[in-house]
Amino acid sequence: MESPYLLFLGDANLVGMDKMGAGIRQWRGELCLGQFRLPGCTADLGLPEMTPAEAQAQGARTMIVGVVNVGGVIPDNWIASIIAAIEAGLDVASGMHQRLADIPAIAEAAARHGRTIHDVRAPTRRFLPGTGVKRSGQRLLTVGTDCAVGKKYTALAIEQEMRSRGIDADFRATGQTGLLIAGRGVVIDAVIADFISGAAEWLSPDADPDHWDVIEGQGSLAHPAYAAVTLGLIHGSQPDALVVCHEPTREKLLGLDYPVPGIAELTDMTLAAARLTNPAVRVVGISINSSTLPADRVEAVIAEIEAETGLPCCDPLVHGPAKIVDRLLEQA
Amino acid sequence: MESPYLLFLGDANLVGMDKMGAGIRQWRGELCLGQFRLPGCTADLGLPEMTPAEAQAQGARTMIVGVVNVGGVIPDNWIASIIAAIEAGLDVASGMHQRLADIPAIAEAAARHGRTIHDVRAPTRRFLPGTGVKRSGQRLLTVGTDCAVGKKYTALAIEQEMRSRGIDADFRATGQTGLLIAGRGVVIDAVIADFISGAAEWLSPDADPDHWDVIEGQGSLAHPAYAAVTLGLIHGSQPDALVVCHEPTREKLLGLDYPVPGIAELTDMTLAAARLTNPAVRVVGISINSSTLPADRVEAVIAEIEAETGLPCCDPLVHGPAKIVDRLLEQA
Repeated sequence: MESPYLLFLGDANLVGMDKMGAGIRQWRGELCLGQFRLPGCTADLGLPEMTPAEAQAQGARTMIVGVVNVGGVIPDNWIASIIAAIEAGLDVASGMHQRLADIPAIAEAAARHGRTIHDVRAPTRRFLPGTGVKRSGQRLLTVGTDCAVGKKYTALAIEQEMRSRGIDADFRATGQTGLLIAGRGVVIDAVIADFISGAAEWLSPDADPDHWDVIEGQGSLAHPAYAAVTLGLIHGSQPDALVVCHEPTREKLLGLDYPVPGIAELTDMTLAAARLTNPAVRVVGISINSSTLPADRVEAVIAEIEAETGLPCCDPLVHGPAKIVDRLLEQA
Repeated sequence: MESPYLLFLGDANLVGMDKMGAGIRQWRGELCLGQFRLPGCTADLGLPEMTPAEAQAQGARTMIVGVVNVGGVIPDNWIASIIAAIEAGLDVASGMHQRLADIPAIAEAAARHGRTIHDVRAPTRRFLPGTGVKRSGQRLLTVGTDCAVGKKYTALAIEQEMRSRGIDADFRATGQTGLLIAGRGVVIDAVIADFISGAAEWLSPDADPDHWDVIEGQGSLAHPAYAAVTLGLIHGSQPDALVVCHEPTREKLLGLDYPVPGIAELTDMTLAAARLTNPAVRVVGISINSSTLPADRVEAVIAEIEAETGLPCCDPLVHGPAKIVDRLLEQA
């Protein structure tokens, strides 16, 4: 996929909808030239505002649809903007379930202008069901009390920290944003249901005994829409180590009338599930997203969580994940 | 799909591989004219042996690929038999993940001879993610300690028993065999991972307060390949009542080096998961497949299970499911 990028945010107006754009901005910011927003958009990545034509004039090569929504369907009112990008000479990439290539007006525009469509969520290969056979090497999986609590960020930060210490570690992407950041992986929520754990097994193959795969978690075992994906990813990943991600001020699951589980409750559920394919699994840390806490409360919340769980707790975006990596290596 | 049927068993030679043919034979036996087996096939549905041409001469209209295998891929050595059926003038139906229509030689033969291909596993509609919103009406879901322990049979038998008592009940198919028997449903292991619980929500919509949906379970929460599908089906079904299905002599999960969990262990796991979307869920009975027990052991095994669980236990194929329906209605 050719860079630099224009990030399209549509009319994103709910918490978490911009997480694809935000992830690319955070981890591949040097490739991001600007953002393109429609009226009503409340998301803001802090990039220069530009239209597709302006972005193309400044050197952009691809417009990325940087939005996620429930169901992954392209709203009708985005189609004109996507076609405008194609007409301006940009390729277009999307992580929605619905493929841009399946929308006739978009497919025709791309053909007419010789541009490339990247539907990155769709699997590009077949998988088999999982086998549960233990693989060599070490694996860390991030899990969460909800969607959009920092599972991808935490995994990327841990990979970076481990590599900086000379440890052989690979981030393993399981979502569309992670895949665009890493350039490889599998969007696990888009595979056929029968093959979730099999796809997770494929993603982190046998490796050297000291190698760590740092696997991006998805959803939450306490989530009535996405727990199935979470469970298949847990079973197929066979994690040796878990990091629990949490947003301390969130009371309801995003968009649903369900409570966010406590850290202890989520930890118990996850360990019980993970022991099926790796009885030695352990939790090595708690990662919080502290952005919604008052600044003067952050240290107290971390101290409370550490006292309750006996585990290191930090916000990797603020403090880095060193504490968690320390604990991981102590026990490994 | 036009009947009568010829059931193709290929070279099925493992326990459970013939379960699609066996289910259709059990529940739609009046539509089954014969079976067609290849050398090496050890499965036997007790139907007259016939080739596609012989079946067609006797009035057969459709050959059903009555076999399931891990991964749902059509073996190369079945393709000639499927083409032979088309050339003999039969339509062909399959419940494999791999679509017959995607195999060029089969698709070409069907086009040339004007025959219809039914790939019944592939979803025919789009789904959305689950919402967890409680629906009206009552729901029973069968769950199991493994695959191929009687979840579909038990659900069909319970629907039949409830209807015979004048209760408004509907079997809800979640697998390819159930779908062919019922003529409707969704093959839940073939939907996109993100939509498992959403598809289950769609399958058993709001209903009258006294209506029962009797939902066919899939896989097992203790199965490293299929637990994800099982969990999404549990969450989306919001069952009020569970029936646990078990094969008392099986020690390892079919085809895997994993133990079959005990009834109590599987019950605890399943209740914990099901309470997320329906805190009032309860177990109303244990269904066993007693076909591998010595005849003089069956009653003792049932008595042991009833003493241990405090729940009615029976083999619906031998005893009918009346005991379980009695308990269900006592508590409803």
